[in-house]
Amino acid sequence: MSEGDEFEKFDKVTVLGPGMIGASFSRALKKRGLATHVTGCSRSKDILESSVSSGYIDSYDTDPVAACSDADLILLATPVESFKPLVTKIAPALKAGAIVIDAGSVKSRVISDIEGLFPETVSFVPCHPIAGNERSGPDASEPELFQGACCIITPTENTNQDALIRVKSLWVALGAFIEELDPAYHDKVYALVSHFPHLVMFTLVNVVSDMDDSALRFTGAGFDDSTRIAKSSPALWRNICMMNKSNLIECIDTMVAGLTQVKSALITEDADALEVFFKRAQTKRLAIKGGR
Amino acid sequence: MSEGDEFEKFDKVTVLGPGMIGASFSRALKKRGLATHVTGCSRSKDILESSVSSGYIDSYDTDPVAACSDADLILLATPVESFKPLVTKIAPALKAGAIVIDAGSVKSRVISDIEGLFPETVSFVPCHPIAGNERSGPDASEPELFQGACCIITPTENTNQDALIRVKSLWVALGAFIEELDPAYHDKVYALVSHFPHLVMFTLVNVVSDMDDSALRFTGAGFDDSTRIAKSSPALWRNICMMNKSNLIECIDTMVAGLTQVKSALITEDADALEVFFKRAQTKRLAIKGGR
Repeated sequence: MSEGDEFEKFDKVTVLGPGMIGASFSRALKKRGLATHVTGCSRSKDILESSVSSGYIDSYDTDPVAACSDADLILLATPVESFKPLVTKIAPALKAGAIVIDAGSVKSRVISDIEGLFPETVSFVPCHPIAGNERSGPDASEPELFQGACCIITPTENTNQDALIRVKSLWVALGAFIEELDPAYHDKVYALVSHFPHLVMFTLVNVVSDMDDSALRFTGAGFDDSTRIAKSSPALWRNICMMNKSNLIECIDTMVAGLTQVKSALITEDADALEVFFKRAQTKRLAIKGGR
Repeated sequence: MSEGDEFEKFDKVTVLGPGMIGASFSRALKKRGLATHVTGCSRSKDILESSVSSGYIDSYDTDPVAACSDADLILLATPVESFKPLVTKIAPALKAGAIVIDAGSVKSRVISDIEGLFPETVSFVPCHPIAGNERSGPDASEPELFQGACCIITPTENTNQDALIRVKSLWVALGAFIEELDPAYHDKVYALVSHFPHLVMFTLVNVVSDMDDSALRFTGAGFDDSTRIAKSSPALWRNICMMNKSNLIECIDTMVAGLTQVKSALITEDADALEVFFKRAQTKRLAIKGGR
């Protein structure tokens, strides 16, 4: 039995935003025979044309309404802040039975922004595939991006159960494993393990550069690995941060308290307090399963 | 011409603290034929015995005075805070013409702690080989640890010029390239690119764990790479931080100011300010030459 045999394939799939995630999704569907036809939609005709010629998608339309009106499955893979205006446009044109999923890194705000906009005949299933790196764009896409990756699904009380089951099997067919989380818990967790670390690394690089730009000539593997995520797209992270701002403000307050605690230990030369603080972190870091 | 041909080898070398750096130094000397005999000294007889049986050192003595009294070259590779008591003990017993180097990550405080303790017939050359990772101990040692690495030397107005030249050629013979820096500048630079990033990553792991310990189950490559250095030895980093505290306090203040600026942008929903801030960091990070 080959992959996808048990999965009822989608006839028409539309990817809104064929970037790293969107184009990887399309390539994964096509490679595994899970969709008959994938249409791409983007504001950039250049990206769309190159995506078709590279085989990332089968066809394209720059008009999202035209691109989505006959789709059975629609993936929202544009920046999160664009979901609301985009769904406002496409929702009335979607065909009955269509399933909409997203790949946004923030869930509560996305759900409150768009869940109520869909007609009753359309199902929205909020998803967050945990895949990708600091790169972006279709050239960074990979057909095996979701293989072995976690896909978090954050259903709400309004989520259609049949659509939820179908979407889960789709991600499993793409090689992902599923975690179902409450949207608010998801946003707290991803503030902690992803959004806030990005914010901290952007800030750390600015601190170094502001205090002595010439120091950046002396960075080694430790600094370079720590700040790799500061290579990420500023526009993308600006939007994720804005849409998860209450969690991030809490993270900033806790971090400032932690740094202030370290500062006190330095000022009072309380070496033991500093070691206890570092030891606690080291123990937690060493305990991360599979952590590199 | 084979390696070391141009280098007048040391007869007797003593390594105080045969950990990752000390044992690597010894193995590198022996592999390249740059020393006739290497003696190790540590408080732990277990480490010394295993170092001799593993061939990291030729012989050992648990008494630093006995270990150093007939040495031509002495490497201080114990934790930085131990240098002062150690040198206070060994300095009067050192033979005329001996050269002492260290491998401490902090230079101004080390120099003010020990430079004045040596007799006039002994030369001290402050060194900081930029090598190693989050591991520690002789088992983490490698004979090629210094190959291609930078060794920073921070001479003072008191440094003997002949000894300085000899020490420079030694590091070059071990495969390192030399940067000569002012000690205070060195400490500022390494606060920025190493000591402060360690402090920030220890703090970040504690923030995540304090805010929701269950979140650590969801970390990915970004978080894991960023916080790899939080696996480092708490005792080692406690001491480095204490000995570079004035620079670190300034770093903490600048970081808190940066985080406060980000918090304001989040509260006022000033997305443009946030993007400018992130973009500035991304540009600096992407410009790091050879940065991974």
